[in-house]
Amino acid sequence: MEQLSINQIKTWDRFYRGNFINSLSGFKSVSLIGTASLSGIPNLAIFSNIVHLGADPALIGFVNRPVEAAPHTLENIRETKSYTINHIHPEIYQQAHQTSAKYPKGCSEFEKTGLTPDWQIGVKSPFVKESKIRYALELEEIVPIRQNRTFLVIGAITSVFLDSLLIDKDGFINIDQANSITSLGLDGYYKVEKIDRLPYAKVATD
Amino acid sequence: MEQLSINQIKTWDRFYRGNFINSLSGFKSVSLIGTASLSGIPNLAIFSNIVHLGADPALIGFVNRPVEAAPHTLENIRETKSYTINHIHPEIYQQAHQTSAKYPKGCSEFEKTGLTPDWQIGVKSPFVKESKIRYALELEEIVPIRQNRTFLVIGAITSVFLDSLLIDKDGFINIDQANSITSLGLDGYYKVEKIDRLPYAKVATD
Repeated sequence: MEQLSINQIKTWDRFYRGNFINSLSGFKSVSLIGTASLSGIPNLAIFSNIVHLGADPALIGFVNRPVEAAPHTLENIRETKSYTINHIHPEIYQQAHQTSAKYPKGCSEFEKTGLTPDWQIGVKSPFVKESKIRYALELEEIVPIRQNRTFLVIGAITSVFLDSLLIDKDGFINIDQANSITSLGLDGYYKVEKIDRLPYAKVATD
Repeated sequence: MEQLSINQIKTWDRFYRGNFINSLSGFKSVSLIGTASLSGIPNLAIFSNIVHLGADPALIGFVNRPVEAAPHTLENIRETKSYTINHIHPEIYQQAHQTSAKYPKGCSEFEKTGLTPDWQIGVKSPFVKESKIRYALELEEIVPIRQNRTFLVIGAITSVFLDSLLIDKDGFINIDQANSITSLGLDGYYKVEKIDRLPYAKVATD
């Protein structure tokens, strides 16, 4: 085992360092975020830094890069307060990845990648029809991270679409049975295999 | 595919709802966080809501539950400004999960679970010796999430320990080759298998 100090890491080429730091923190909840402008032009972008914040209220966060690097999703969310999060499966990971290309504003990544927008009554943002687990959120708050000009975008879940056969008797969703994938770094995609579910951990009373 | 509205979800039993919402957002960067009190008593706790914030500076965030539910890690980080994050592998996932039991303050989860603290010069918090990828952080900021009394704890990476054979020629870390696992919900553990790494996505110029 080798020790690398941050002073060494800082001397690395920025792409090398970016790949290294991005994969260090582990596997990610990669998903497609669907939004629309006020005039209804759909936008779709892949995000991997999605984080569970709490179940009651049901809150999910995601990290948006500095606004000049990834402006359209954040701009649409600011305007409509609405977005969808859609799981990715092996059949669509290449199209999902392609949404990260820098398409100009007003250009629909659905059209460019061949993914299908799915509009639902009462939701201003499109879902991804090919996604087997998808949910809609309403913006709660955009928290600026002052250290690096990123944003933690906090949303409240408003509705969920999935096959109810995926839900265990205790509410746990077997997203592996929908073949939802996970990602690593900026461009690694992985399928998963269940090891185990463990019971609630208790202090031994011996 | 079934639609579930948040109003339906709110009527569910809180454990059922907790399992459901916790697994909806996808696979997580589950890891063990090592800390120590000012007097040097080690603490170890499993956290799954870990999120990459940026590569330059190298920042990682994790979500800490309301302080009364998970006080010791946060208290130690406040005191020493130091913590370690340690990947989990199939050989230690049961011990890792057991750290979530509500041990009293001053009781070392290392001792209780049989995991081995590994102290390194210049780092005030213990690493987990059994972990094959581990890194130390210095506290940057604790951001309160006002919606649910959780905290986003932001840390700057100060050093990384891993086998350099895991690092690809472009800096990407093949954490799957170290058998690092991912988690789902509160208690599901999964191993991963690589599908692919994709090249940087570009807008087609035809």
